[in-house]
Amino acid sequence: MNPDSDLRQLRQSINEKLASILPKESPIAAPMLEAMRYAVLGGGKRIRPLLTCTVCTALESGFENALLPGCAIELIHAYSLIHDDLPAMDDDDLRHGRPSTHKQFGEAIAILAGDSLHSLAFQSIVRAPDISQDTKVKAIAALAEAAGWRGMSGGQCLDINSEGKKLSVDQLRSLHAAKTGALIRTSFQIGALCAGEHEGSRNFQVLTKVGSDIGLAFQIVDDILDVTSDSETLGKPSQSDEVAEKNTFPQLMGIEKSQEEANELLASSLQLLRDCGIENPVLASLLRQTVRRQN
Amino acid sequence: MNPDSDLRQLRQSINEKLASILPKESPIAAPMLEAMRYAVLGGGKRIRPLLTCTVCTALESGFENALLPGCAIELIHAYSLIHDDLPAMDDDDLRHGRPSTHKQFGEAIAILAGDSLHSLAFQSIVRAPDISQDTKVKAIAALAEAAGWRGMSGGQCLDINSEGKKLSVDQLRSLHAAKTGALIRTSFQIGALCAGEHEGSRNFQVLTKVGSDIGLAFQIVDDILDVTSDSETLGKPSQSDEVAEKNTFPQLMGIEKSQEEANELLASSLQLLRDCGIENPVLASLLRQTVRRQN
Repeated sequence: MNPDSDLRQLRQSINEKLASILPKESPIAAPMLEAMRYAVLGGGKRIRPLLTCTVCTALESGFENALLPGCAIELIHAYSLIHDDLPAMDDDDLRHGRPSTHKQFGEAIAILAGDSLHSLAFQSIVRAPDISQDTKVKAIAALAEAAGWRGMSGGQCLDINSEGKKLSVDQLRSLHAAKTGALIRTSFQIGALCAGEHEGSRNFQVLTKVGSDIGLAFQIVDDILDVTSDSETLGKPSQSDEVAEKNTFPQLMGIEKSQEEANELLASSLQLLRDCGIENPVLASLLRQTVRRQN
Repeated sequence: MNPDSDLRQLRQSINEKLASILPKESPIAAPMLEAMRYAVLGGGKRIRPLLTCTVCTALESGFENALLPGCAIELIHAYSLIHDDLPAMDDDDLRHGRPSTHKQFGEAIAILAGDSLHSLAFQSIVRAPDISQDTKVKAIAALAEAAGWRGMSGGQCLDINSEGKKLSVDQLRSLHAAKTGALIRTSFQIGALCAGEHEGSRNFQVLTKVGSDIGLAFQIVDDILDVTSDSETLGKPSQSDEVAEKNTFPQLMGIEKSQEEANELLASSLQLLRDCGIENPVLASLLRQTVRRQN
């Protein structure tokens, strides 16, 4: 009954499931498949599927119900990293301590591998064995909304367009609510859907709020680590935000106040879950790890 | 009761629906939204949604059932054109007689607009008002399969990797069965699903076969037009296959034999539909237009 070992075991199940849903052989597109596996299996903390599965468990449903939908969210996350790293976007050569996908396979294969992961994500929800067709449609709707123009892609567009321009703290919050927040929030929502919650339920609403807050805390910590950590620990270039003239929380609010806000978001989220009777030590431990991580 | 005017009217309904589902305003991603609308609404024959709606009607169901799912296929097609035109891919500056999306909006916005259209496609099936949750899941499964590694993206990967290499006619068939064929085939399948056909039904199987054959005929004609037509008629650079050292049917089989094969595929498809009792003058006219088109 050690939350950390539960999370390690769950992470292993997630990694195994990801390895099993990624295609291995194709007569027509072998290098693209290799790039897909490289991008997804080469690293990553699996925070999003861990959240989806743990929320599902915290609502007293089996984590298996949420395993494939959680992996679908991870595939969307992985595709977005491939595309974000491209020269035309953030132009990053390093990811998970290795060459980013386009450095390893070339730009064309990287773009196509991202596109294929994007489609595969929706296939993975379709294939989830233990949830109803109705739940699948709702999970697909939530994932497409979070990934699309109002969520992740829209946020990345604003991020690129605001390089070198000074944003207000509120504008930066909106940017991150879309760019990273939407996918983290939907990890909570899809976990709740897989546990049989309806979109109007109190639990669903609370988990949506917690998802938004943890998503913001996650990004604040990300910004802090970019300033305070080194490239080796991060597995990607540190100080990259400054180089790209990106707006960050530490820059706009200072490191100390940023850390304070992340801590407060964590504390209020944990309190909200307790108030709602969702007291699960594994979920609590995961939220702490997410906000207090070192890389 | 004129099939051509029916098709014109249906095309107008499709264009109106596409215009209505494309987002217009966003506080965070205005240029990306503009690029999405530019890419989708700037031109295109709408063959895929026309097929989906017409197949649905031919099976005695209302075309409205298939309208949003058909538009979803068009969004996938549009995103693929944006990404295929990128400098790292086919590097095409002209599309529908205008600058391609990345020439107009820059590469970063083009990549993101494509990604957002990809997500929006799945949202569009979710929002179809007149079909069951079960049908939506099956249509999403079919579309994701057709768009992904085994379909369109996989085919584009093979296409790029075989530039400058000589393929056999059979290899070229496999390439196009994936690259353009999969999405055309799924247009037939999703039309059938929206009409309430089950995947095991005789009608579904026949329409899958007709979809594969018409998809191949479509691509053969595309290759022929690239050689015989001019850029103004095509709205994109002609002779581009030769420049890119792409394998084409006219090159491997000659123009005359290529045209013969396309005609035979059309004739056998029309016969197969008649044998199966799917005799619909609008569908027959659409198939003829698809194979005998001038651009």
